[in-house]
Amino acid sequence: MSPLLAEFIGTAALVLLGDGAVANVLLARTKGRGSDLIVIVFGWAVAVFVGVFIAASYSGAHLNPVVSVALALTGKFDWARVPGYVAAQMAGGAFGAFIVWLAYRQHFAAEENADLKLAVFCTGPAIRSVPHNLLTEAIATFALVFAVLCMASPQVGLGAMGALPVALLVLGLGISLGGPTGYAMSPARDLGPRLVHALLPIPGKRDSDWGYSWIPVVGPLLGGGGAALVYQMAAVAK
Amino acid sequence: MSPLLAEFIGTAALVLLGDGAVANVLLARTKGRGSDLIVIVFGWAVAVFVGVFIAASYSGAHLNPVVSVALALTGKFDWARVPGYVAAQMAGGAFGAFIVWLAYRQHFAAEENADLKLAVFCTGPAIRSVPHNLLTEAIATFALVFAVLCMASPQVGLGAMGALPVALLVLGLGISLGGPTGYAMSPARDLGPRLVHALLPIPGKRDSDWGYSWIPVVGPLLGGGGAALVYQMAAVAK
Amino acid sequence: MSPLLAEFIGTAALVLLGDGAVANVLLARTKGRGSDLIVIVFGWAVAVFVGVFIAASYSGAHLNPVVSVALALTGKFDWARVPGYVAAQMAGGAFGAFIVWLAYRQHFAAEENADLKLAVFCTGPAIRSVPHNLLTEAIATFALVFAVLCMASPQVGLGAMGALPVALLVLGLGISLGGPTGYAMSPARDLGPRLVHALLPIPGKRDSDWGYSWIPVVGPLLGGGGAALVYQMAAVAK
Amino acid sequence: MSPLLAEFIGTAALVLLGDGAVANVLLARTKGRGSDLIVIVFGWAVAVFVGVFIAASYSGAHLNPVVSVALALTGKFDWARVPGYVAAQMAGGAFGAFIVWLAYRQHFAAEENADLKLAVFCTGPAIRSVPHNLLTEAIATFALVFAVLCMASPQVGLGAMGALPVALLVLGLGISLGGPTGYAMSPARDLGPRLVHALLPIPGKRDSDWGYSWIPVVGPLLGGGGAALVYQMAAVAK
Repeated sequence: MSPLLAEFIGTAALVLLGDGAVANVLLARTKGRGSDLIVIVFGWAVAVFVGVFIAASYSGAHLNPVVSVALALTGKFDWARVPGYVAAQMAGGAFGAFIVWLAYRQHFAAEENADLKLAVFCTGPAIRSVPHNLLTEAIATFALVFAVLCMASPQVGLGAMGALPVALLVLGLGISLGGPTGYAMSPARDLGPRLVHALLPIPGKRDSDWGYSWIPVVGPLLGGGGAALVYQMAAVAK
Repeated sequence: MSPLLAEFIGTAALVLLGDGAVANVLLARTKGRGSDLIVIVFGWAVAVFVGVFIAASYSGAHLNPVVSVALALTGKFDWARVPGYVAAQMAGGAFGAFIVWLAYRQHFAAEENADLKLAVFCTGPAIRSVPHNLLTEAIATFALVFAVLCMASPQVGLGAMGALPVALLVLGLGISLGGPTGYAMSPARDLGPRLVHALLPIPGKRDSDWGYSWIPVVGPLLGGGGAALVYQMAAVAK
Repeated sequence: MSPLLAEFIGTAALVLLGDGAVANVLLARTKGRGSDLIVIVFGWAVAVFVGVFIAASYSGAHLNPVVSVALALTGKFDWARVPGYVAAQMAGGAFGAFIVWLAYRQHFAAEENADLKLAVFCTGPAIRSVPHNLLTEAIATFALVFAVLCMASPQVGLGAMGALPVALLVLGLGISLGGPTGYAMSPARDLGPRLVHALLPIPGKRDSDWGYSWIPVVGPLLGGGGAALVYQMAAVAK
Repeated sequence: MSPLLAEFIGTAALVLLGDGAVANVLLARTKGRGSDLIVIVFGWAVAVFVGVFIAASYSGAHLNPVVSVALALTGKFDWARVPGYVAAQMAGGAFGAFIVWLAYRQHFAAEENADLKLAVFCTGPAIRSVPHNLLTEAIATFALVFAVLCMASPQVGLGAMGALPVALLVLGLGISLGGPTGYAMSPARDLGPRLVHALLPIPGKRDSDWGYSWIPVVGPLLGGGGAALVYQMAAVAK
């Protein structure tokens, strides 16, 4: 598998399993309607596990534009490869969200609450506030990227099971920092599926909340970029 | 252990632990009655873990006719061995469901809702519709088989713990794609136990919903077969 | 650590963490009061993980008289060592239950329901019936012992992490076969703590339900012994 | 990374992910408000996993003053290094709690119950009683430290994945011994964040319950110190 195909497939798997978990818990008449938060956070954690496990040996399994940018900032990834990776990730995320819609079409039709339909595709804040929402997304993504960079070096030898610590990390971030804004931490998980929401003929849908859409892009980039710089300084100081 | 015995035991363990989880959550007066969805999806995930762990070194642990067919389609498994494997899987699934009935006999008697009794044995759609239900089962099984095929190559070296990524994958599929039809993804998990439901003297049972019974067979075969072909094309293109 | 000390400590850890989970979920005014079943079954699964992880390299981590008897039946353990192992396991289980009482003394005092106080120490049937309860305990323990015997051979190489598949197995058994009788599967987990319940000065306690007490001993022995014999036959036939 | 920086970062990650889980479940208008106990205990377990995984190869990942003291008592850690480690851990815990406040600022403002705001930072007893609370904290920490000491020797070869058994242990302790006092088991997790609660300008906050604050310090030290001594005696007797 080529690296770009692996990024596409891995990100598609990630968003399919992650957004699918949200659909199962939120939409009308599903078997998982109203389940506890533990279902959502395990859904996203396993989504990351499967995506990383599949793509790891072909592309390094970034699966998130912020990770590609952060690795480039630390010199571990060639800037010239960033645009291709990001394009593959965005396309993969959009494709995964599209498949969720296919699988849950009847439940999108049965659901009356347009906010819940949008929430399957992308995140929204529990309490709307530009500075607070931006800060929360930046903090969560800082933690994600910093921990992934720390994990990357002793991880040697874990092989394919290196997906497990990353999945546990995402489980923890969902539980701990998902409360205020839903832990997007990635444009491929938020902006891509949001565009799919805008394009698809979902009955009774609301607008795609474009006013909020830049926050789960800029917040993660600030947080992830900051994590890369701090990690780099620590590594140089060492 | 012979491969066929391993497929029988592994599939029996899978359905015993999986259908048992459903019985515990659905039937009257059990200790798990009314538990959260997380119990069901962990039940099936651990069921797969135990079945695969037991059978892996003897038969390769297909435990699902769709997996045997998909592996034959990709040339990784001899077509001549498919009928024996499928027979062992179907018999194992039926046997596992029979043991669930033995263990929960009193609770089948105490339960008044005939739909719940059937749901212990086999899947049913949340919203009935042939094309949508077929599509959802095909999508879920495509994801299962495609991911298993992807996992199979870097999995080298995991040994018996190779059961863990597959179990996590099934955990994710249950959370994410189980909402509309209950993620059968296998005739050995659905058709075999459904037949057991028809044959057993369960007090106050309903019919076995034969009108739906072909969907969790044909849908998974279409999805799993499609995954094998797409995987094969990707491998050739490589 | 001597094998007997390891069996004592391992079984004490197992019952401390397992019965403690039940106390947290059932007793009045705890922080876990009324939690979902998933908490109980993860409690017992992690209890087994910790006990087995600690004892594995010293005693082989039987931690259950039924496991020692089953291993002796299959010729993998010397009959002469069974009495010592069983004594250490029974003492460990009783000690673990005693520590649970110490930690939760205030909550035993605050709780008014005497049945819940007993349930912290030992199992009871959801629907009382000697033949059905015996059968359910035998089935669950058959599955436990048969799976452990199957796991024991390819397990080579897992090392200390061999505790993980056993813990996942117990997670699955709790979810799937714990519904009717609470999955005792071991006299060290049931009879030992029951005796502690009888002896301790617990305010407002009921009798220790001695009429049921032989079922979680005889049922597991029948099931575990049967599993050993079937496994042996399969191994000879191989 | 220097050992002290690793202890700081590891403990900060631990408290960020742990206290963050409490914030998500307790505070007003979060996405996790009112979730089941399983979310809290997985939150702390993953917090330990991430902290230990990050710090393991640099500092040995004590992340808890009680662990440093216990290791010094058993001769596995130089007493001269204890003060530095403890200082780094206390600072890390305080910093992690500060970040939780940053991420959840809006929800601290929206929440009216001052007890819940305090509970995000530090533990409190379900039923207040100096001897019982002290005993429960000592028991839980005895189990933590004794099990970690037992795990430390066969753990050789687990490498970075050695964080997994410790995380599972903490999952079990939360489920089983968290009921009465909330399983602080560490001054870095309780006293540090409590100080942060006292210093931060949280709207509508209550006092920081300083009357209780010594119990999650002294109880864990007694329990952890006792575990070290018992472990040492067992090792000498061997």
